[in-house]
Amino acid sequence: MIAWTEGRFIDPHSPLVGASDPGLMTGQGMFDTIAAYHGRLWALEAHLSRLSASLTAAHIPQPQVDLDEGARLVAAHLRNVPVGRIRITVLNTHEGSRTVITATPEPHAPALGAPHPTDARVAITPWARSPLMPFAGHKSTSYAHNIQALHWAYAQGADEGLWHGPNGGLCEGSVSNLLTVVDGQLATASAQCGVLPGVTLAVVREVCHELGGVRELSAVEVGEVVGVGQGGALVGTLRMIQPIGVVDGVPGEVPGVIRRAQELVAAAMPDFLADA
Amino acid sequence: MIAWTEGRFIDPHSPLVGASDPGLMTGQGMFDTIAAYHGRLWALEAHLSRLSASLTAAHIPQPQVDLDEGARLVAAHLRNVPVGRIRITVLNTHEGSRTVITATPEPHAPALGAPHPTDARVAITPWARSPLMPFAGHKSTSYAHNIQALHWAYAQGADEGLWHGPNGGLCEGSVSNLLTVVDGQLATASAQCGVLPGVTLAVVREVCHELGGVRELSAVEVGEVVGVGQGGALVGTLRMIQPIGVVDGVPGEVPGVIRRAQELVAAAMPDFLADA
Repeated sequence: MIAWTEGRFIDPHSPLVGASDPGLMTGQGMFDTIAAYHGRLWALEAHLSRLSASLTAAHIPQPQVDLDEGARLVAAHLRNVPVGRIRITVLNTHEGSRTVITATPEPHAPALGAPHPTDARVAITPWARSPLMPFAGHKSTSYAHNIQALHWAYAQGADEGLWHGPNGGLCEGSVSNLLTVVDGQLATASAQCGVLPGVTLAVVREVCHELGGVRELSAVEVGEVVGVGQGGALVGTLRMIQPIGVVDGVPGEVPGVIRRAQELVAAAMPDFLADA
Repeated sequence: MIAWTEGRFIDPHSPLVGASDPGLMTGQGMFDTIAAYHGRLWALEAHLSRLSASLTAAHIPQPQVDLDEGARLVAAHLRNVPVGRIRITVLNTHEGSRTVITATPEPHAPALGAPHPTDARVAITPWARSPLMPFAGHKSTSYAHNIQALHWAYAQGADEGLWHGPNGGLCEGSVSNLLTVVDGQLATASAQCGVLPGVTLAVVREVCHELGGVRELSAVEVGEVVGVGQGGALVGTLRMIQPIGVVDGVPGEVPGVIRRAQELVAAAMPDFLADA
Protein backbone atom coordinates (compact mmCIF):
# COMPACT_ATOMS: atom_id res chain seq x y z
CA MET A 1 0.00 0.00 0.00
CA ILE A 2 1.11 3.53 -0.81
CA ALA A 3 -0.22 6.43 1.28
CA TRP A 4 -0.15 10.18 0.71
CA THR A 5 -1.47 12.97 2.88
CA GLU A 6 -1.65 16.70 2.32
CA GLY A 7 1.01 16.78 -0.38
CA ARG A 8 3.53 14.17 0.82
CA PHE A 9 3.94 10.40 0.72
CA ILE A 10 4.00 8.66 4.10
CA ASP A 11 4.38 5.19 5.58
CA PRO A 12 0.78 3.81 5.58
CA HIS A 13 1.37 2.51 9.12
CA SER A 14 2.41 5.90 10.46
CA PRO A 15 -0.12 7.55 12.78
CA LEU A 16 -2.15 10.36 11.30
CA VAL A 17 -5.10 11.36 13.41
CA GLY A 18 -5.42 11.67 17.17
CA ALA A 19 -7.77 11.53 20.14
CA SER A 20 -8.89 15.14 19.72
CA ASP A 21 -9.97 14.62 16.11
CA PRO A 22 -13.62 13.93 15.29
CA GLY A 23 -12.48 12.03 12.18
CA LEU A 24 -11.16 9.32 14.50
CA MET A 25 -13.41 9.47 17.54
CA THR A 26 -16.83 9.98 15.97
CA GLY A 27 -16.33 8.68 12.43
CA GLN A 28 -16.67 12.08 10.77
CA GLY A 29 -15.23 11.56 7.34
CA MET A 30 -16.18 10.77 3.76
CA PHE A 31 -14.35 8.64 1.25
CA ASP A 32 -14.41 7.27 -2.25
CA THR A 33 -12.73 4.39 -4.05
CA ILE A 34 -11.64 4.52 -7.69
CA ALA A 35 -10.29 1.78 -9.94
CA ALA A 36 -6.92 2.50 -11.59
CA TYR A 37 -5.74 0.72 -14.77
CA HIS A 38 -1.97 0.95 -15.17
CA GLY A 39 -2.25 4.07 -13.03
CA ARG A 40 -5.05 5.73 -15.01
CA LEU A 41 -8.09 6.52 -12.89
CA TRP A 42 -11.57 5.44 -13.91
CA ALA A 43 -14.42 7.99 -13.86
CA LEU A 44 -12.28 10.27 -11.68
CA GLU A 45 -14.37 13.40 -12.13
CA ALA A 46 -17.66 11.70 -11.19
CA HIS A 47 -16.11 10.16 -8.08
CA LEU A 48 -14.62 13.50 -6.95
CA SER A 49 -17.91 15.24 -7.54
CA ARG A 50 -19.79 12.72 -5.36
CA LEU A 51 -17.15 13.02 -2.62
CA SER A 52 -17.36 16.80 -2.63
CA ALA A 53 -21.17 16.69 -2.31
CA SER A 54 -20.87 14.25 0.62
CA LEU A 55 -18.38 16.54 2.42
CA THR A 56 -20.81 19.44 2.04
CA ALA A 57 -23.66 17.30 3.44
CA ALA A 58 -21.52 16.39 6.46
CA HIS A 59 -20.25 19.95 7.06
CA ILE A 60 -16.66 18.71 6.64
CA PRO A 61 -14.32 21.37 5.22
CA GLN A 62 -13.34 20.68 1.60
CA PRO A 63 -9.70 19.53 1.23
CA GLN A 64 -6.85 22.04 1.21
CA VAL A 65 -5.19 20.00 -1.55
CA ASP A 66 -6.23 19.52 -5.19
CA LEU A 67 -7.82 16.04 -5.11
CA ASP A 68 -7.62 15.55 -8.85
CA GLU A 69 -3.88 16.22 -8.78
CA GLY A 70 -3.32 14.21 -5.57
CA ALA A 71 -5.20 11.18 -6.87
CA ARG A 72 -3.19 11.17 -10.10
CA LEU A 73 0.10 11.53 -8.22
CA VAL A 74 -0.73 8.52 -6.06
CA ALA A 75 -2.15 6.49 -8.95
CA ALA A 76 1.05 7.04 -10.93
CA HIS A 77 2.70 4.61 -8.49
CA LEU A 78 0.44 1.88 -9.87
CA ARG A 79 1.47 2.38 -13.49
CA ASN A 80 2.99 -1.12 -13.65
CA VAL A 81 -0.11 -2.75 -12.12
CA PRO A 82 -2.97 -3.86 -14.43
CA VAL A 83 -5.66 -2.99 -11.87
CA GLY A 84 -5.33 -1.07 -8.63
CA ARG A 85 -7.50 0.81 -6.15
CA ILE A 86 -7.21 4.45 -5.07
CA ARG A 87 -9.04 5.44 -1.93
CA ILE A 88 -9.51 9.13 -1.13
CA THR A 89 -10.51 9.83 2.47
CA VAL A 90 -11.28 13.28 3.89
CA LEU A 91 -11.55 13.35 7.69
CA ASN A 92 -12.85 16.07 9.96
CA THR A 93 -10.12 17.30 12.32
CA HIS A 94 -9.86 20.01 14.95
CA GLU A 95 -7.87 22.06 12.42
CA GLY A 96 -10.26 21.66 9.46
CA SER A 97 -9.96 18.51 7.39
CA ARG A 98 -7.26 16.00 6.56
CA THR A 99 -6.97 14.21 3.22
CA VAL A 100 -5.44 10.75 2.87
CA ILE A 101 -5.05 8.98 -0.46
CA THR A 102 -3.94 5.34 -0.60
CA ALA A 103 -3.20 3.02 -3.50
CA THR A 104 -3.21 -0.80 -3.51
CA PRO A 105 -2.99 -3.41 -6.29
CA GLU A 106 -6.20 -5.39 -6.97
CA PRO A 107 -5.15 -8.64 -8.66
CA HIS A 108 -8.68 -10.13 -8.71
CA ALA A 109 -10.53 -7.22 -10.33
CA PRO A 110 -11.41 -7.38 -14.04
CA ALA A 111 -8.78 -6.00 -16.41
CA LEU A 112 -9.53 -2.93 -18.53
CA GLY A 113 -12.05 -3.84 -21.22
CA ALA A 114 -12.67 -7.35 -19.83
CA PRO A 115 -15.86 -8.61 -18.14
CA HIS A 116 -15.49 -9.81 -14.53
CA PRO A 117 -13.78 -13.22 -14.66
CA THR A 118 -15.95 -14.81 -11.94
CA ASP A 119 -19.60 -14.70 -10.88
CA ALA A 120 -20.44 -13.51 -7.37
CA ARG A 121 -21.76 -15.54 -4.47
CA VAL A 122 -24.04 -13.39 -2.34
CA ALA A 123 -25.68 -13.94 1.05
CA ILE A 124 -28.82 -12.10 2.13
CA THR A 125 -28.09 -10.33 5.43
CA PRO A 126 -30.57 -9.96 8.30
CA TRP A 127 -30.04 -6.17 8.13
CA ALA A 128 -31.77 -3.28 6.41
CA ARG A 129 -30.67 0.08 4.99
CA SER A 130 -32.67 3.05 6.16
CA PRO A 131 -33.12 6.10 3.96
CA LEU A 132 -34.04 7.96 7.17
CA MET A 133 -30.43 8.26 8.34
CA PRO A 134 -28.51 11.53 7.76
CA PHE A 135 -25.84 9.87 5.59
CA ALA A 136 -27.95 7.37 3.67
CA GLY A 137 -26.57 7.45 0.13
CA HIS A 138 -23.15 8.79 1.22
CA LYS A 139 -19.84 6.94 1.59
CA SER A 140 -19.09 7.89 5.18
CA THR A 141 -16.13 6.62 7.22
CA SER A 142 -18.84 5.72 9.76
CA TYR A 143 -18.77 2.50 7.79
CA ALA A 144 -18.70 -0.20 10.47
CA HIS A 145 -22.21 -1.46 9.60
CA ASN A 146 -21.07 -2.14 6.02
CA ILE A 147 -17.89 -3.92 7.13
CA GLN A 148 -19.87 -6.03 9.61
CA ALA A 149 -22.25 -7.12 6.84
CA LEU A 150 -19.35 -7.85 4.47
CA HIS A 151 -17.53 -9.99 7.04
CA TRP A 152 -20.79 -11.74 7.89
CA ALA A 153 -21.14 -12.62 4.19
CA TYR A 154 -17.56 -13.97 4.08
CA ALA A 155 -18.42 -16.18 7.05
CA GLN A 156 -21.31 -17.62 5.00
CA GLY A 157 -18.87 -18.46 2.18
CA ALA A 158 -20.11 -15.54 0.06
CA ASP A 159 -18.30 -12.59 -1.54
CA GLU A 160 -20.87 -9.95 -0.65
CA GLY A 161 -23.88 -9.43 1.61
CA LEU A 162 -27.17 -7.98 0.33
CA TRP A 163 -29.14 -5.55 2.50
CA HIS A 164 -32.87 -5.33 2.79
CA GLY A 165 -34.50 -2.05 1.91
CA PRO A 166 -36.64 0.09 4.20
CA ASN A 167 -39.84 -1.84 3.47
CA GLY A 168 -38.49 -5.34 2.96
CA GLY A 169 -37.01 -6.76 -0.21
CA LEU A 170 -33.38 -6.10 -1.07
CA CYS A 171 -31.71 -2.86 -2.09
CA GLU A 172 -27.92 -3.06 -2.40
CA GLY A 173 -24.77 -4.87 -1.36
CA SER A 174 -22.74 -3.87 1.68
CA VAL A 175 -20.04 -2.43 -0.61
CA SER A 176 -21.72 -2.53 -4.04
CA ASN A 177 -24.88 -1.57 -5.89
CA LEU A 178 -27.37 -4.23 -6.97
CA LEU A 179 -28.50 -4.60 -10.58
CA THR A 180 -31.39 -6.87 -11.36
CA VAL A 181 -33.74 -7.71 -14.24
CA VAL A 182 -37.50 -7.12 -14.65
CA ASP A 183 -39.27 -8.33 -17.79
CA GLY A 184 -35.91 -8.59 -19.54
CA GLN A 185 -34.92 -5.03 -18.63
CA LEU A 186 -32.12 -3.91 -16.27
CA ALA A 187 -33.37 -2.51 -12.98
CA THR A 188 -32.00 -1.19 -9.70
CA ALA A 189 -33.27 0.17 -6.39
CA SER A 190 -34.24 3.81 -6.41
CA ALA A 191 -32.27 6.41 -4.45
CA GLN A 192 -35.43 6.69 -2.29
CA CYS A 193 -34.33 3.41 -0.68
CA GLY A 194 -31.20 5.09 0.73
CA VAL A 195 -28.75 3.34 -1.60
CA LEU A 196 -25.46 4.87 -2.72
CA PRO A 197 -25.76 6.82 -5.99
CA GLY A 198 -23.21 4.58 -7.72
CA VAL A 199 -20.75 6.07 -10.19
CA THR A 200 -20.40 2.75 -12.03
CA LEU A 201 -24.18 2.37 -12.00
CA ALA A 202 -24.43 5.76 -13.70
CA VAL A 203 -22.04 4.47 -16.37
CA VAL A 204 -24.21 1.34 -16.79
CA ARG A 205 -27.20 3.64 -17.39
CA GLU A 206 -25.25 5.66 -19.92
CA VAL A 207 -23.76 2.71 -21.82
CA CYS A 208 -26.74 0.34 -21.79
CA HIS A 209 -29.34 2.53 -23.51
CA GLU A 210 -29.57 -0.01 -26.33
CA LEU A 211 -30.83 -2.50 -23.71
CA GLY A 212 -33.67 -0.17 -22.78
CA GLY A 213 -31.88 1.66 -19.93
CA VAL A 214 -32.12 0.89 -16.22
CA ARG A 215 -35.49 1.01 -14.44
CA GLU A 216 -35.70 2.29 -10.87
CA LEU A 217 -37.63 -0.02 -8.55
CA SER A 218 -38.62 0.18 -4.92
CA ALA A 219 -36.63 -2.06 -2.57
CA VAL A 220 -39.64 -4.37 -2.32
CA GLU A 221 -39.68 -4.92 -6.08
CA VAL A 222 -35.92 -5.58 -6.22
CA GLY A 223 -36.36 -8.15 -3.47
CA GLU A 224 -39.10 -9.96 -5.38
CA VAL A 225 -36.93 -10.16 -8.48
CA VAL A 226 -33.77 -11.43 -6.79
CA GLY A 227 -35.79 -13.63 -4.46
CA VAL A 228 -37.29 -15.71 -7.27
CA GLY A 229 -33.86 -16.31 -8.79
CA GLN A 230 -34.35 -14.18 -11.89
CA GLY A 231 -30.73 -13.17 -11.50
CA GLY A 232 -28.79 -10.00 -11.03
CA ALA A 233 -25.35 -8.50 -10.66
CA LEU A 234 -23.21 -6.48 -8.27
CA VAL A 235 -21.98 -3.14 -9.57
CA GLY A 236 -19.03 -1.05 -8.39
CA THR A 237 -15.79 0.58 -9.50
CA LEU A 238 -13.66 -2.55 -8.95
CA ARG A 239 -16.28 -5.14 -9.94
CA MET A 240 -17.78 -3.21 -12.83
CA ILE A 241 -20.70 -5.62 -13.47
CA GLN A 242 -20.21 -8.92 -11.62
CA PRO A 243 -23.08 -11.34 -12.31
CA ILE A 244 -24.56 -13.07 -9.27
CA GLY A 245 -24.05 -16.82 -9.67
CA VAL A 246 -25.11 -18.01 -6.22
CA VAL A 247 -27.65 -16.62 -3.70
CA ASP A 248 -27.44 -18.08 -0.17
CA GLY A 249 -25.63 -21.14 -1.50
CA VAL A 250 -28.15 -21.79 -4.30
CA PRO A 251 -26.82 -21.43 -7.87
CA GLY A 252 -29.01 -19.52 -10.33
CA GLU A 253 -29.08 -18.49 -13.96
CA VAL A 254 -27.48 -15.24 -15.07
CA PRO A 255 -29.92 -13.51 -17.47
CA GLY A 256 -28.65 -12.78 -20.97
CA VAL A 257 -29.29 -9.06 -20.54
CA ILE A 258 -26.83 -8.99 -17.61
CA ARG A 259 -24.15 -10.70 -19.72
CA ARG A 260 -24.81 -8.23 -22.55
CA ALA A 261 -24.61 -5.23 -20.18
CA GLN A 262 -21.36 -6.64 -18.85
CA GLU A 263 -19.91 -6.75 -22.36
CA LEU A 264 -21.10 -3.24 -23.20
CA VAL A 265 -19.60 -1.75 -20.04
CA ALA A 266 -16.33 -3.67 -20.50
CA ALA A 267 -16.03 -2.38 -24.06
CA ALA A 268 -16.73 1.20 -22.95
CA MET A 269 -14.36 1.14 -19.96
CA PRO A 270 -11.46 2.90 -21.73
CA ASP A 271 -13.76 5.84 -22.59
CA PHE A 272 -14.09 6.66 -18.89
CA LEU A 273 -10.38 6.73 -18.06
CA ALA A 274 -8.97 10.03 -16.87
CA ASP A 275 -6.00 11.10 -18.96
CA ALA A 276 -2.85 9.92 -17.22
CA MET B 1 -8.10 17.33 27.77
CA ILE B 2 -5.94 14.53 29.09
CA ALA B 3 -5.30 11.48 26.90
CA TRP B 4 -3.87 8.06 27.70
CA THR B 5 -3.24 5.14 25.42
CA GLU B 6 -2.03 1.63 26.13
CA GLY B 7 -0.47 2.47 29.48
CA ARG B 8 0.97 5.94 28.91
CA PHE B 9 -0.24 9.53 28.89
CA ILE B 10 0.08 11.37 25.57
CA ASP B 11 -0.60 14.77 24.05
CA PRO B 12 -4.27 14.54 22.90
CA HIS B 13 -3.27 16.21 19.61
CA SER B 14 -0.59 13.64 18.85
CA PRO B 15 -1.43 11.27 16.01
CA LEU B 16 -2.48 7.77 17.01
CA VAL B 17 -4.00 5.79 14.21
CA GLY B 18 -3.06 5.61 10.53
CA ALA B 19 -4.29 4.95 7.02
CA SER B 20 -3.90 1.19 7.32
CA ASP B 21 -6.09 0.98 10.43
CA PRO B 22 -9.78 0.07 10.10
CA GLY B 23 -10.47 2.06 13.29
CA LEU B 24 -9.77 5.21 11.30
CA MET B 25 -10.76 4.35 7.74
CA THR B 26 -13.98 2.38 8.28
CA GLY B 27 -15.09 3.55 11.73
CA GLN B 28 -14.49 0.21 13.42
CA GLY B 29 -14.43 1.05 17.09
CA MET B 30 -16.61 1.15 20.16
CA PHE B 31 -16.62 3.68 22.96
CA ASP B 32 -18.25 4.67 26.20
CA THR B 33 -18.50 7.86 28.22
CA ILE B 34 -18.56 7.96 32.02
CA ALA B 35 -19.18 10.85 34.40
CA ALA B 36 -16.44 11.47 37.01
CA TYR B 37 -17.07 13.36 40.26
CA HIS B 38 -13.82 14.66 41.76
CA GLY B 39 -12.16 11.86 39.82
CA ARG B 40 -14.48 9.07 41.00
CA LEU B 41 -16.18 7.24 38.14
CA TRP B 42 -19.93 6.74 38.04
CA ALA B 43 -21.34 3.25 37.33
CA LEU B 44 -17.92 2.20 36.02
CA GLU B 45 -18.58 -1.52 36.03
CA ALA B 46 -21.85 -1.28 34.08
CA HIS B 47 -20.23 0.97 31.45
CA LEU B 48 -17.25 -1.39 31.03
CA SER B 49 -19.55 -4.36 30.75
CA ARG B 50 -21.58 -2.69 27.96
CA LEU B 51 -18.38 -1.70 26.13
CA SER B 52 -17.02 -5.24 26.31
CA ALA B 53 -20.26 -6.67 24.90
CA SER B 54 -20.14 -4.15 22.05
CA LEU B 55 -16.54 -5.09 21.18
CA THR B 56 -17.56 -8.74 21.02
CA ALA B 57 -20.49 -7.88 18.73
CA ALA B 58 -18.15 -5.97 16.40
CA HIS B 59 -15.41 -8.65 16.42
CA ILE B 60 -12.94 -6.08 17.77
CA PRO B 61 -10.25 -7.63 19.99
CA GLN B 62 -10.72 -6.84 23.68
CA PRO B 63 -8.14 -4.32 25.01
CA GLN B 64 -4.67 -5.45 26.04
CA VAL B 65 -4.86 -3.09 29.02
CA ASP B 66 -7.01 -3.31 32.16
CA LEU B 67 -9.79 -0.80 31.40
CA ASP B 68 -10.89 -0.51 35.00
CA GLU B 69 -7.36 0.44 36.05
CA GLY B 70 -6.77 2.68 33.03
CA ALA B 71 -10.03 4.59 33.52
CA ARG B 72 -9.22 5.20 37.20
CA LEU B 73 -5.68 6.36 36.38
CA VAL B 74 -7.01 8.88 33.89
CA ALA B 75 -9.92 9.96 36.10
CA ALA B 76 -7.49 10.65 38.97
CA HIS B 77 -6.34 13.69 36.96
CA LEU B 78 -9.83 15.16 37.45
CA ARG B 79 -9.77 14.90 41.24
CA ASN B 80 -9.94 18.68 41.61
CA VAL B 81 -12.85 18.98 39.15
CA PRO B 82 -16.44 18.69 40.46
CA VAL B 83 -17.68 16.96 37.29
CA GLY B 84 -15.67 15.56 34.41
CA ARG B 85 -16.05 13.12 31.54
CA ILE B 86 -14.00 10.01 30.81
CA ARG B 87 -14.28 8.57 27.35
CA ILE B 88 -12.93 5.07 26.67
CA THR B 89 -12.47 4.25 23.00
CA VAL B 90 -11.30 0.88 21.63
CA LEU B 91 -10.41 0.96 17.94
CA ASN B 92 -9.77 -1.91 15.56
CA THR B 93 -6.22 -1.74 14.17
CA HIS B 94 -4.14 -3.94 11.90
CA GLU B 95 -2.30 -5.16 15.02
CA GLY B 96 -5.38 -5.95 17.14
CA SER B 97 -7.01 -3.10 19.00
CA ARG B 98 -5.95 0.24 20.42
CA THR B 99 -7.39 1.77 23.57
CA VAL B 100 -7.58 5.51 24.14
CA ILE B 101 -8.94 7.07 27.31
CA THR B 102 -9.52 10.81 27.55
CA ALA B 103 -10.66 13.06 30.38
CA THR B 104 -12.24 16.51 30.16
CA PRO B 105 -13.93 18.80 32.71
CA GLU B 106 -17.71 19.24 32.30
CA PRO B 107 -18.62 22.51 34.03
CA HIS B 108 -22.29 22.43 32.95
CA ALA B 109 -23.17 18.91 34.14
CA PRO B 110 -25.07 18.46 37.43
CA ALA B 111 -22.91 18.11 40.53
CA LEU B 112 -22.92 14.88 42.52
CA GLY B 113 -26.25 14.50 44.30
CA ALA B 114 -27.81 17.53 42.59
CA PRO B 115 -30.60 17.50 39.98
CA HIS B 116 -29.73 18.98 36.57
CA PRO B 117 -29.66 22.77 36.97
CA THR B 118 -31.41 23.50 33.64
CA ASP B 119 -34.21 21.99 31.58
CA ALA B 120 -33.43 20.78 28.04
CA ARG B 121 -34.56 22.29 24.77
CA VAL B 122 -35.06 19.54 22.21
CA ALA B 123 -35.71 19.58 18.46
CA ILE B 124 -37.37 16.70 16.62
CA THR B 125 -35.05 15.60 13.81
CA PRO B 126 -36.22 14.44 10.36
CA TRP B 127 -34.28 11.18 10.91
CA ALA B 128 -35.09 7.73 12.25
CA ARG B 129 -33.17 5.05 14.12
CA SER B 130 -33.34 1.59 12.61
CA PRO B 131 -33.12 -1.51 14.79
CA LEU B 132 -32.24 -3.37 11.57
CA MET B 133 -28.64 -2.11 11.52
CA PRO B 134 -25.82 -4.33 12.84
CA PHE B 135 -24.80 -1.87 15.58
CA ALA B 136 -28.21 -0.58 16.64
CA GLY B 137 -28.01 -0.33 20.42
CA HIS B 138 -24.18 -0.06 20.46
CA LYS B 139 -21.97 2.99 20.95
CA SER B 140 -19.90 2.66 17.79
CA THR B 141 -17.27 5.17 16.63
CA SER B 142 -19.25 5.05 13.36
CA TYR B 143 -21.08 7.88 15.06
CA ALA B 144 -21.34 10.53 12.34
CA HIS B 145 -25.14 10.19 12.08
CA ASN B 146 -25.47 11.04 15.77
CA ILE B 147 -23.14 14.03 15.53
CA GLN B 148 -24.99 15.30 12.46
CA ALA B 149 -28.29 15.14 14.36
CA LEU B 150 -26.77 16.85 17.41
CA HIS B 151 -25.32 19.71 15.35
CA TRP B 152 -28.61 20.00 13.48
CA ALA B 153 -30.33 20.43 16.86
CA TYR B 154 -27.82 23.11 17.92
CA ALA B 155 -28.61 24.96 14.69
CA GLN B 156 -32.30 24.97 15.73
CA GLY B 157 -31.34 26.55 19.07
CA ALA B 158 -31.84 23.25 20.92
CA ASP B 159 -29.53 21.19 23.16
CA GLU B 160 -30.41 17.80 21.71
CA GLY B 161 -32.16 16.24 18.72
CA LEU B 162 -34.78 13.50 19.08
CA TRP B 163 -34.86 10.62 16.59
CA HIS B 164 -37.92 8.92 15.24
CA GLY B 165 -38.24 5.21 15.81
CA PRO B 166 -38.54 2.56 13.14
CA ASN B 167 -42.32 2.95 12.78
CA GLY B 168 -42.74 6.65 13.47
CA GLY B 169 -42.96 8.32 16.84
CA LEU B 170 -39.80 9.18 18.75
CA CYS B 171 -37.33 6.84 20.40
CA GLU B 172 -34.22 8.54 21.78
CA GLY B 173 -31.93 11.55 21.58
CA SER B 174 -28.87 11.65 19.33
CA VAL B 175 -26.60 11.31 22.40
CA SER B 176 -29.09 10.48 25.18
CA ASN B 177 -31.98 8.21 26.09
CA LEU B 178 -35.52 9.54 26.22
CA LEU B 179 -37.70 9.18 29.33
CA THR B 180 -41.37 10.02 29.10
CA VAL B 181 -44.56 9.63 31.11
CA VAL B 182 -47.69 7.53 30.46
CA ASP B 183 -50.63 7.71 32.87
CA GLY B 184 -48.34 9.19 35.50
CA GLN B 185 -45.75 6.43 35.13
CA LEU B 186 -42.20 6.71 33.76
CA ALA B 187 -41.76 5.13 30.35
CA THR B 188 -39.09 4.70 27.70
CA ALA B 189 -38.67 3.16 24.25
CA SER B 190 -38.02 -0.56 24.19
CA ALA B 191 -34.69 -1.98 23.07
CA GLN B 192 -36.68 -3.39 20.11
CA CYS B 193 -36.61 0.16 18.69
CA GLY B 194 -32.81 0.00 18.35
CA VAL B 195 -32.09 2.44 21.18
CA LEU B 196 -28.93 2.32 23.30
CA PRO B 197 -29.34 0.22 26.46
CA GLY B 198 -28.55 3.18 28.71
CA VAL B 199 -26.53 2.66 31.87
CA THR B 200 -28.11 5.70 33.53
CA LEU B 201 -31.53 4.51 32.38
CA ALA B 202 -30.86 1.19 34.14
CA VAL B 203 -30.08 3.18 37.30
CA VAL B 204 -33.35 5.12 36.87
CA ARG B 205 -35.18 1.77 36.70
CA GLU B 206 -33.40 0.57 39.83
CA VAL B 207 -33.86 3.72 41.88
CA CYS B 208 -37.41 4.67 40.85
CA HIS B 209 -39.27 1.50 41.87
CA GLU B 210 -41.32 3.56 44.34
CA LEU B 211 -42.66 5.47 41.31
CA GLY B 212 -43.89 2.25 39.74
CA GLY B 213 -40.77 1.49 37.67
CA VAL B 214 -40.21 2.34 34.00
CA ARG B 215 -42.57 0.96 31.34
CA GLU B 216 -41.19 -0.05 27.96
CA LEU B 217 -43.12 1.41 25.03
CA SER B 218 -42.88 1.05 21.28
CA ALA B 219 -41.39 4.06 19.49
CA VAL B 220 -44.87 4.95 18.25
CA GLU B 221 -46.20 5.18 21.78
CA VAL B 222 -43.27 7.32 22.96
CA GLY B 223 -43.92 9.65 20.05
CA GLU B 224 -47.57 10.06 20.97
CA VAL B 225 -46.66 10.93 24.54
CA VAL B 226 -43.96 13.48 23.75
CA GLY B 227 -45.96 14.79 20.80
CA VAL B 228 -48.91 15.90 22.94
CA GLY B 229 -46.60 17.75 25.32
CA GLN B 230 -47.05 15.46 28.29
CA GLY B 231 -43.38 16.01 29.01
CA GLY B 232 -40.28 13.94 29.34
CA ALA B 233 -36.58 14.01 30.08
CA LEU B 234 -33.23 13.20 28.54
CA VAL B 235 -31.16 10.58 30.35
CA GLY B 236 -27.42 9.96 30.20
CA THR B 237 -24.28 9.73 32.31
CA LEU B 238 -23.56 13.48 32.21
CA ARG B 239 -27.16 14.71 32.23
CA MET B 240 -28.51 12.15 34.68
CA ILE B 241 -32.19 13.11 34.29
CA GLN B 242 -32.59 16.43 32.46
CA PRO B 243 -36.27 17.40 32.14
CA ILE B 244 -37.37 18.58 28.69
CA GLY B 245 -38.58 22.17 28.99
CA VAL B 246 -38.98 23.05 25.32
CA VAL B 247 -39.88 20.91 22.26
CA ASP B 248 -39.28 22.57 18.85
CA GLY B 249 -39.35 26.00 20.47
CA VAL B 250 -42.60 25.39 22.37
CA PRO B 251 -42.36 25.37 26.18
CA GLY B 252 -44.18 22.56 28.00
CA GLU B 253 -44.87 21.36 31.52
CA VAL B 254 -42.47 18.98 33.25
CA PRO B 255 -44.56 16.26 34.95
CA GLY B 256 -44.19 15.89 38.71
CA VAL B 257 -43.09 12.26 38.34
CA ILE B 258 -40.09 13.41 36.26
CA ARG B 259 -39.07 15.91 38.94
CA ARG B 260 -39.48 13.22 41.60
CA ALA B 261 -37.37 10.72 39.59
CA GLN B 262 -34.75 13.42 39.17
CA GLU B 263 -34.55 13.88 42.94
CA LEU B 264 -34.40 10.13 43.61
CA VAL B 265 -31.57 9.60 41.12
CA ALA B 266 -29.66 12.65 42.39
CA ALA B 267 -29.90 11.35 45.95
CA ALA B 268 -28.72 7.89 44.91
CA MET B 269 -25.83 9.11 42.75
CA PRO B 270 -23.12 8.59 45.39
CA ASP B 271 -24.15 4.91 45.73
CA PHE B 272 -23.03 4.27 42.15
CA LEU B 273 -19.55 5.78 42.45
CA ALA B 274 -16.64 3.43 41.92
CA ASP B 275 -14.25 3.53 44.85
CA ALA B 276 -11.47 5.96 44.01
